[in-house]
Amino acid sequence: MKEILKKIEDNSLTVGILGLGYVGLPLAISFAQAGIKVIGFDKSAEKVEKINSGENYIRDIRDAVLREVVENIILSATTDFTRISECDALLICVPTPLDIFHKPDMSYIEAACVSIGQNMKPGTFISLESTTYPTTTEDLMLPILERESGLKHDTDFWLAYSPERVDPGNKDFHTKNTPKVLGAISKEGLDIGEKIYSKAIDHLHLVSSPKVAEMVKILENTYRLVNISLINELALLSGKMGIDIWEVIEAAKTKPFGFQAFYPGPGIGGHCIPLDPFYLEHIAKKYNFDLTMIHAAGHINMRMPHYMVIKITSALNSQKKPVNGSKILFLGVAYKPNIDDARESPALEIMDIIIKKGGVVSYHDPYISTVQTHGSASPGGAPLQSIDLSPTALQTADCVVITTNHAVFDAEMIQEHSRLIVDLRHVIKAPSDKVYKL
Amino acid sequence: MKEILKKIEDNSLTVGILGLGYVGLPLAISFAQAGIKVIGFDKSAEKVEKINSGENYIRDIRDAVLREVVENIILSATTDFTRISECDALLICVPTPLDIFHKPDMSYIEAACVSIGQNMKPGTFISLESTTYPTTTEDLMLPILERESGLKHDTDFWLAYSPERVDPGNKDFHTKNTPKVLGAISKEGLDIGEKIYSKAIDHLHLVSSPKVAEMVKILENTYRLVNISLINELALLSGKMGIDIWEVIEAAKTKPFGFQAFYPGPGIGGHCIPLDPFYLEHIAKKYNFDLTMIHAAGHINMRMPHYMVIKITSALNSQKKPVNGSKILFLGVAYKPNIDDARESPALEIMDIIIKKGGVVSYHDPYISTVQTHGSASPGGAPLQSIDLSPTALQTADCVVITTNHAVFDAEMIQEHSRLIVDLRHVIKAPSDKVYKL
Repeated sequence: MKEILKKIEDNSLTVGILGLGYVGLPLAISFAQAGIKVIGFDKSAEKVEKINSGENYIRDIRDAVLREVVENIILSATTDFTRISECDALLICVPTPLDIFHKPDMSYIEAACVSIGQNMKPGTFISLESTTYPTTTEDLMLPILERESGLKHDTDFWLAYSPERVDPGNKDFHTKNTPKVLGAISKEGLDIGEKIYSKAIDHLHLVSSPKVAEMVKILENTYRLVNISLINELALLSGKMGIDIWEVIEAAKTKPFGFQAFYPGPGIGGHCIPLDPFYLEHIAKKYNFDLTMIHAAGHINMRMPHYMVIKITSALNSQKKPVNGSKILFLGVAYKPNIDDARESPALEIMDIIIKKGGVVSYHDPYISTVQTHGSASPGGAPLQSIDLSPTALQTADCVVITTNHAVFDAEMIQEHSRLIVDLRHVIKAPSDKVYKL
Repeated sequence: MKEILKKIEDNSLTVGILGLGYVGLPLAISFAQAGIKVIGFDKSAEKVEKINSGENYIRDIRDAVLREVVENIILSATTDFTRISECDALLICVPTPLDIFHKPDMSYIEAACVSIGQNMKPGTFISLESTTYPTTTEDLMLPILERESGLKHDTDFWLAYSPERVDPGNKDFHTKNTPKVLGAISKEGLDIGEKIYSKAIDHLHLVSSPKVAEMVKILENTYRLVNISLINELALLSGKMGIDIWEVIEAAKTKPFGFQAFYPGPGIGGHCIPLDPFYLEHIAKKYNFDLTMIHAAGHINMRMPHYMVIKITSALNSQKKPVNGSKILFLGVAYKPNIDDARESPALEIMDIIIKKGGVVSYHDPYISTVQTHGSASPGGAPLQSIDLSPTALQTADCVVITTNHAVFDAEMIQEHSRLIVDLRHVIKAPSDKVYKL
């Protein structure tokens, strides 16, 4: 029997996880909770130090759980990538951002593959979890790994793809109980991968190749991008037609089949939906294929923050005020409710445009104490600090803009004390002359 | 108390239903089953005769149910629209097709309004069920009704909009148990409408205006159009990339939140999804608004039958055969499985193109015995007749094209006897060299 299979059987394998962000850390903990030794790798000395001292930095993880697996030395973290040689399985959870030209930035995956290739021992199972375009695992990763290691796939190591499905803030589904898709290059790799992941994940769904698994993740997020874009476009038209899109969606939801509700908003944020579909657009070019739905969806979403600025401008204008010099308070900078993540948040882009137009911008977010907008956030480019959400803060603002629907926001209190509200998230339900809605 | 309210209370009102198609007839029966007298109006003497002799022509209705309400003289049908004067409520279920330039053809609604306006008695409740663009009820129907009747809205009659949600072939949801959205112009109209519809429908969802209700229906069907288009586009790309899109969808479906599966196909058919979104596109022009998502979706779907022809051509070409002179057998012409409706079915368009290219076309559909394709279906433009699905019929064909996934189709039998298969509906699950899939 192969050594790795024996180690899987007696739970003595060591799992290495590359990248300790919102995907890697929960995954590491899921394995550690199954009693499997986990080494977490990250270039950030700060993150590594935090983990090794049992300090949690991911909202969806309970502090006590992290502390327990660290104290029992089941989970440890390191910046030393040569320790890859201690691992039997390596799961890659590094970022796959887009560059400033909206092209996939594969440098994190490439660097991970170089590190692994130079350090892994024979008999290692490797799996990529990062979202990427179909063919990445076989066409990009495999050659690097074989070249750097001098080892041969399916004899000396196995390569697979298994996309993360982490949904920050989701109370029902977390790493362990969310079914996971797995595709490997070889049959043996699929078998080994299934046995390893089954230690930490309740249900695995096996597919015939890495590229099928890669397309699965892209389909899931493209579905969301396209539907959010559709409802955003219909919201803009509804606004012009005097139709309340929120009322329309509530009514459509009563259809008991063939409909899933999406809600409009000031744009798309986070680390997945604004990015993933453009990975597919990137690889489609290689096949001379134009993805018109993704293209149209991207177009709408890129313009949403600008439309929102027009809404704010119109609201101020109705009170005979220009943006220039007006005090504008933003409520919520997280890209979705009840989370502490402002990555790609449309609120930041709107704030940025308003600042450029001379607006005096402040913000409140209960979960995010400081943000840096894309451009010149404040004079000198210093980050903005979240202010307290007091009646005075609301009264002082010429316009209050609701950019995130955090559940803790008190709609009545906001409505009572604000002079003018632009509600981009349907937080204010009671009709009022001073409320402008998306 | 108003007369209509009294009649509602003691179940003595008469409901008139204009248009006795797949929407009107089930609705008529739903009221009749509640013991309410129903007069069905239709221009087709054939339909009226059938109903009055208890003969059913809608697959989703059980013959015995129709016979019972007709025999008890609860439901009767007529071509005489002056009998509108006998009705207390009038529900309009006429077609709203697109004309050959893909513009809404409102002539059926207009004609219904003229008939009603000229014949209704004071105190009548009127509701439109046909899908149409937002503002139709108030801006198009109301002026015609007031002009033709000389009566005043909210004093002498009430006007509402309540979109049909009939899903042919759906075993779980039918007219009575599918929640129904209702929006009326006036508060009194909404109240009366709710009381009337509640006789025949289990759950009503009230909205603030007809235009909100109109937008609800458009949203529901636009959601479907856009998602089918998206998956069709991804299917085409996947084909080029050697990825099985059906396997991708099955895997994506294991995501327990935020995903709803749609399936690719040779194009979009039926009376709703290919049409309704373009109603919205039509009215959007009035607001100088370009609906890019619908536009892109329409573009993909218009091209799908042409791509399917390319698939058929490629499959034949692999066997060194041209389309011209080859025998091509189509399985299924209904626009979706297990129904007897070929309206707007993409199969017809594909057959038409193949015929024009010189292909010798035949078809089998267990539910549709004869079809007329759009153009010159067969020499002289005569309709095609469904042939028996025998081993010989399959063996004789140079290519068998599966255009509808009727549940009764025997995949093994088809695969065994066919020489070459183009499967556009994922009917053939077993891999084979002679099967080309979408």
